Amino acid sequence: MRKGELTRQAILDDAVEVAARVGLGGLTIGQLAVHTEMSKSGLFAHFRSKESLQIEVLQRAREHFIDRVMRPALATPRGVLRVRSLFDGWLRWQSTVAEGGCIFVAAAAELDDQPGPVRDELVRCEQDWLDTMAVVASTAVAEGEFRPDLDNEQFAYEMHGIMLSHHHAGRLLRDPRSEERARRALDALIASASKPVH
Amino acid sequence: MRKGELTRQAILDDAVEVAARVGLGGLTIGQLAVHTEMSKSGLFAHFRSKESLQIEVLQRAREHFIDRVMRPALATPRGVLRVRSLFDGWLRWQSTVAEGGCIFVAAAAELDDQPGPVRDELVRCEQDWLDTMAVVASTAVAEGEFRPDLDNEQFAYEMHGIMLSHHHAGRLLRDPRSEERARRALDALIASASKPVH
Repeated sequence: MRKGELTRQAILDDAVEVAARVGLGGLTIGQLAVHTEMSKSGLFAHFRSKESLQIEVLQRAREHFIDRVMRPALATPRGVLRVRSLFDGWLRWQSTVAEGGCIFVAAAAELDDQPGPVRDELVRCEQDWLDTMAVVASTAVAEGEFRPDLDNEQFAYEMHGIMLSHHHAGRLLRDPRSEERARRALDALIASASKPVH
Repeated sequence: MRKGELTRQAILDDAVEVAARVGLGGLTIGQLAVHTEMSKSGLFAHFRSKESLQIEVLQRAREHFIDRVMRPALATPRGVLRVRSLFDGWLRWQSTVAEGGCIFVAAAAELDDQPGPVRDELVRCEQDWLDTMAVVASTAVAEGEFRPDLDNEQFAYEMHGIMLSHHHAGRLLRDPRSEERARRALDALIASASKPVH
């Protein structure tokens, strides 16, 4: 990897952390200059505009997300084990990887009313994430652990809800029981996906 | 009600709308002056600081929330009907009342890492909302519709997750099936709360 590319990634890693804390909108080249101790003109040479910086920040966060959440799940046997691995990976991701919480959760609330290429990039990330959860649920169907007529997208929708409730209860309300509640909710969701419909 | 009080409420109503769109952090007295066509000095006379404005905006939004979501639910018979009324009220709230989505959802992602009195006010609002969902679930236990050993707080946690998933899928992803999915998820949650534990 060229040195310029390494520098760029290091800057983006800093930017991901800043954005997880203050939001993508709060991320300016000026502020990033303070945080990285680089000159504003040096940063402008790397990123032409605030918008392209924001998009690259989302793309960088997505690379980390793939490495730390999706890749370990794909290394786990197909089925319920893989569903749980994905969930565990996300729990680690939002609690330890990003000090400011999940950058995607923060950006979702921030950008939902702001049309444009940054929102479009975020929608791609989030749609892929929901698709991943649905596909992993389908491996549990294929393995015979989940019932054959399971609506995988519905499963992903509800699994996502548990994650968002945990992000809210854990980070905003600082509820010490939130992770335990999230795990119980996932257990109930998995149990209901495992039973035949009455 | 005195005229000054009416003016204050009208300004706050505008501010709630602005904050639902751009976030509480994006709400400045200068921006509100443009939106309300009032002078900045006039607004400063009403609200001493940006922080006190933000707190009053949350309190005003909470009054609307009580009127439009909680009050209709309390007028519904205790039990599952009331759980459904609360959920329906929230669906209406986030889709029609506030054009920019739910101000509390937006503020949660924005303020979770920003300690201070505005965050404290939001935490009070959100804790009360979760408590309300738990109490309404307990009326269904008392009426014999939910099983006697139901963990009401867990029920509220999961119900909240469905709402947050809908806010995300409906507003960010613009998934036309999101409301239908949210209703199916609530049906499943109610069904599981109605059954004895095995």
